[in-house]
Amino acid sequence: MVIIDRHWTSGKGGSGLLAQVPMSDDAPASDPVLAGYRSSIDNIDAALIHMLAERFRITKAVGAHKAETKLPTSDPGREDRQITRMRKLAEDASLDPEFSEKFLRFIIEEVIRHHEQARNGKS
Amino acid sequence: MVIIDRHWTSGKGGSGLLAQVPMSDDAPASDPVLAGYRSSIDNIDAALIHMLAERFRITKAVGAHKAETKLPTSDPGREDRQITRMRKLAEDASLDPEFSEKFLRFIIEEVIRHHEQARNGKS
Repeated sequence: MVIIDRHWTSGKGGSGLLAQVPMSDDAPASDPVLAGYRSSIDNIDAALIHMLAERFRITKAVGAHKAETKLPTSDPGREDRQITRMRKLAEDASLDPEFSEKFLRFIIEEVIRHHEQARNGKS
Repeated sequence: MVIIDRHWTSGKGGSGLLAQVPMSDDAPASDPVLAGYRSSIDNIDAALIHMLAERFRITKAVGAHKAETKLPTSDPGREDRQITRMRKLAEDASLDPEFSEKFLRFIIEEVIRHHEQARNGKS
């Protein structure tokens, strides 16, 4: 039991619910509250990375499907509708809608980069 | 039952597991595969927005906590460790590690903007 506790709180002052997950070893030893926040941020970042990995898996499949079925590669109306939807979702989640639009454009830029790489790989 | 089916597939040619969720109305009616992919992308984007909203909620709490407890506002070592961790997570998820680093820096920029706004709001 002692070993389990030490494993899960890293022995650096973690306490409370937020600290009951494996945490980074970089929080000040004297501040369990900050350590708990950082642990939550690290968990969210891991979730974000995995969601992004899945999103790019799908956009790669979309690129391959469009090439196979000879569908047009770009769809400007789709992007506009995505932005409108993201801004609405952001508002509902108390996130700055401007940031949500910037975020979507940041992701779409990467998707375009992937598609260009795929084209260059084939040419 | 007919009404439920029409609700969940939007009557625009959705079929298969990916289409069994509410989908955007902007996929070509003739391509249920693309409609399914877009539906998955839209679900992932909603998840990303909510994870980001939660992340910013926590970083705001971190800012308030640091101000209260007079902890230093910046911690350069923490950022370096976060980047190293994100790159490793990205590799494990078959995501470009360069992109994961760019993504974290993009988020951190927004966190800094929030902290500046909070400071300006108080001055």
